[in-house]
Amino acid sequence: MSTAGPSPFETDLDKNPANYMPMHPSRFLERAAETFPGRTAMIHGARRFTYAEQHERSVRLASALARRGIGAGDTVALMGSNTPESLEAHFGVPMTGAVLNPLNIRLDAAIIAFILDHGGAKVLLTDTEFAPTVEAALGIARVKPLVIDIDDGEGPGGKRLGEMDYEELIGEGDPDYDWPGVEDEWQAIALSYTSGTTGDPKGVVYHARGAYMNALGNAVTWAMPHRPVYLWTLPMFHALGWCFPWSVAIMGGTHVGLRKVEAQAIFRSIADNGVTHMCGAPIVLSTLINAPEEDRVPFEQSVKVFTAGSAPAPAVLDGIAKLGFDVTHVYGLTEVFGPSAHCAWQEAWDGLSGDALAEQKARQGVAYPTMDGGMIVADPVTLEPVPRDGATMGEILKRGNSIMKGYLKNPKATDAAFAGGWFHTGDLAVWHPDGYVQIRDRSKDIIISGGENISSIEVEAALYAHPDIAEAAVVAKPHERWEETPCAFVGLRPGAALTEAEVIEWCRSRLAHYKCPTAVVFGELPKTSTGKIQKFRLREQAAG
Amino acid sequence: MSTAGPSPFETDLDKNPANYMPMHPSRFLERAAETFPGRTAMIHGARRFTYAEQHERSVRLASALARRGIGAGDTVALMGSNTPESLEAHFGVPMTGAVLNPLNIRLDAAIIAFILDHGGAKVLLTDTEFAPTVEAALGIARVKPLVIDIDDGEGPGGKRLGEMDYEELIGEGDPDYDWPGVEDEWQAIALSYTSGTTGDPKGVVYHARGAYMNALGNAVTWAMPHRPVYLWTLPMFHALGWCFPWSVAIMGGTHVGLRKVEAQAIFRSIADNGVTHMCGAPIVLSTLINAPEEDRVPFEQSVKVFTAGSAPAPAVLDGIAKLGFDVTHVYGLTEVFGPSAHCAWQEAWDGLSGDALAEQKARQGVAYPTMDGGMIVADPVTLEPVPRDGATMGEILKRGNSIMKGYLKNPKATDAAFAGGWFHTGDLAVWHPDGYVQIRDRSKDIIISGGENISSIEVEAALYAHPDIAEAAVVAKPHERWEETPCAFVGLRPGAALTEAEVIEWCRSRLAHYKCPTAVVFGELPKTSTGKIQKFRLREQAAG
Repeated sequence: MSTAGPSPFETDLDKNPANYMPMHPSRFLERAAETFPGRTAMIHGARRFTYAEQHERSVRLASALARRGIGAGDTVALMGSNTPESLEAHFGVPMTGAVLNPLNIRLDAAIIAFILDHGGAKVLLTDTEFAPTVEAALGIARVKPLVIDIDDGEGPGGKRLGEMDYEELIGEGDPDYDWPGVEDEWQAIALSYTSGTTGDPKGVVYHARGAYMNALGNAVTWAMPHRPVYLWTLPMFHALGWCFPWSVAIMGGTHVGLRKVEAQAIFRSIADNGVTHMCGAPIVLSTLINAPEEDRVPFEQSVKVFTAGSAPAPAVLDGIAKLGFDVTHVYGLTEVFGPSAHCAWQEAWDGLSGDALAEQKARQGVAYPTMDGGMIVADPVTLEPVPRDGATMGEILKRGNSIMKGYLKNPKATDAAFAGGWFHTGDLAVWHPDGYVQIRDRSKDIIISGGENISSIEVEAALYAHPDIAEAAVVAKPHERWEETPCAFVGLRPGAALTEAEVIEWCRSRLAHYKCPTAVVFGELPKTSTGKIQKFRLREQAAG
Repeated sequence: MSTAGPSPFETDLDKNPANYMPMHPSRFLERAAETFPGRTAMIHGARRFTYAEQHERSVRLASALARRGIGAGDTVALMGSNTPESLEAHFGVPMTGAVLNPLNIRLDAAIIAFILDHGGAKVLLTDTEFAPTVEAALGIARVKPLVIDIDDGEGPGGKRLGEMDYEELIGEGDPDYDWPGVEDEWQAIALSYTSGTTGDPKGVVYHARGAYMNALGNAVTWAMPHRPVYLWTLPMFHALGWCFPWSVAIMGGTHVGLRKVEAQAIFRSIADNGVTHMCGAPIVLSTLINAPEEDRVPFEQSVKVFTAGSAPAPAVLDGIAKLGFDVTHVYGLTEVFGPSAHCAWQEAWDGLSGDALAEQKARQGVAYPTMDGGMIVADPVTLEPVPRDGATMGEILKRGNSIMKGYLKNPKATDAAFAGGWFHTGDLAVWHPDGYVQIRDRSKDIIISGGENISSIEVEAALYAHPDIAEAAVVAKPHERWEETPCAFVGLRPGAALTEAEVIEWCRSRLAHYKCPTAVVFGELPKTSTGKIQKFRLREQAAG
């Protein structure tokens, strides 16, 4: 029935400054400061900032940077801990239209130098704790950024490397600066490098639209209340702090800084500051579960936790629930602005407990409501979805409005990541009949023994269920007859003692025999700067 | 410091199908159906639909319409009550790319005919209750839409006017239809006519982006929990049901239908269905407060209410709180997708009660977090903001991503509404020192007496505070000496008796004398089809 000619619904009805604005996540801070100027926006040790103050400091930062010529297309790198300054940078740098590049504070000087050069840093904000690494990196890097020191009284101190410190810089800024933001919401506002397990780190370029959208996505997915108190157990350099700098502003909440993930400091902050929400890898949860009695501080409230990075083991989920934490497993990557999927609660689970519950909760789940394009498990080449049988493996593919623009100066990697019009996560998973996705393995983590695929995650889950095992990783060990067999690396709890035979026997009581480790190595596991277990090192060890 | 040449952040980093999709509010239903297929999406009398069913019915509707040639640029009108079919139309019609035009069910045949013609209706979905009006309208209208009857078992029944009924129509549809949605999120998906207090109704054209954004805006502004139970006390034809068809889907909640705003039915539904949220004009609240004892049904939960349309009177706020309702005053217009501002709670109010609290809560408040451009009170011509002194009057102006495209086939009205790059609400208000906006009057509602401006709202608030007064409206009455004086129209509670002198004396005890009515008329007040008191009629009466 459609009539020819231009539709009246699209005639004389153009966008104008009143009905269309590029989305920009710093607007959430602006609105919170207008609405709740006297409310506490940030607690960090003895320092407290109201929303009016946090807003003013962020605008001053933007203004001071703009006065020094920083704007769209310029990179401002940040080597920062979870402090007020780092948070302000997430608001202030994008206000200028420039690109914030948070650096992984655990990297070494050579990689930092590579990133500064590759990202083209014009300014570097750097916490004095990291001065040794940063000084060495600046000696290697070709770029010569303006260096600004962050001297946090809660930190250990350290050498100043820069022309001035952060407080002097923002002192230069105009608190009434009318910040430009972006002209187009597709513009880059941030840059974050992947950990580079295979080759050089890749620079993930983030657009304003996606940051805005995933900030809202967190809020509705978690059903965040008004005035959450959010403890920064998640490193803020992880995928823009999973967009929580902005989600907390949307809800008018309070950020609580934290420089180190230590059990006592976390328990203390939860009790003292009334923390309601926090995020982090399962290692954060293990740290709390394994904390000695003297490090624990009682608290009244239930603390909601988003965890991701690897699937939390059933024993971890069980242990943390008993301590008063309500954990939701979320799933994301640097490329998708942090979490963009979650293990949404189902009414049918209301009566579950123990392993039966943990089995459900350990799955990666379903797409955020704001990930319009959704998430599928499919053949990575044909893009044909796998059956929802909980058994057939495929790659997790995503589509939506909070997925990166691509990799900086790396069209080949960008094209590969977006092959066929889907973002390829690289994670291999099964699709359950209820639509929930469950990662079985990164492809290289699959152990193929006698032609059978063994999921190292499944074997690890069995190991974690042992009361004496604090951490575990399983990799392939070359084997003459079976090609590969599982080799377990195990860290025991303080005071515990286990033999190789006992560990194998434990696994045999819970797993098909072909899945059980044929060798067990005891000791602390090597980890990446972001706390992930370095399986490639274990593989070398297993092969040796 | 910016370098010349194309920025590497904008090179080889284009939008692609994986990282950019036009926002579309029906995606929220799609995602809810994938995640919670067995959860109850809609309760309406004896009928219950799961999310899988609601999704299937909506997709079938879209498919059936598309098979009949309906798509982008076509109008599907809806004369519907708050039933499953109306809700499905909010999902299904935009799925095709067509424009949903919900009609005000209280309008007369002549205006319905005008709207059908002006909007160019190709299809009309019409509830049999409204057959007399619709039949007459179809006799007048030039357009000849395909007419589909909605025959709701909860309704009173009525003549069938169409070729088939709704169930037959959706029976034609393909449940696996791969719906196209919109190519551009700026495309029109809906059309809603203003009540036309001055001249012909104007057709407000809504874009997909704004509906998506305000659906999220409701959820975060209200901090909606998972699985809200939302009772449809708000007519769904009001500004797209204030975007709650989609907000409820985001949170995986349950809609509860309601054909008539009657106290007993509302109380019964709250008690039986565990209602947690509802919306409506203050008249809904008055209906509940004034309900006779036998119409009340006790309930345990606190029910959250968004109210708007006119400022709730202090006595109404006080009375409804005692019944177990937690009311937030929101503010919006048809042109801004329903509410886009709210009276955000401040910690400083925690200790307030009675009039002191009502005084705060009756204000229109501040912009939604998603209304990026915010809300100001300014001179409508110079756009100069008024001082935040709680006294100087100006017009409320808005900017943001959930404001209409403009008025259909009315560029003159569109240009006037967007003069100077702001949306002009037509509401006159003061701006308080805390940034909260408070409407003093629509310009035509100001009474100018002896050169002094009198806010009719202020006088009405004084009247509503009287225990015997159920409803009140104040308009200007011509006066030889003072030009105008306030004339009060008052409806009393059942069994109450008051004299004119008593009412005037009551006002004099609470207001400056020049603000007090000089005449009082008793009786039921005339209301528009949307429940607003028709002040123009009262003005005629006062002038006569």
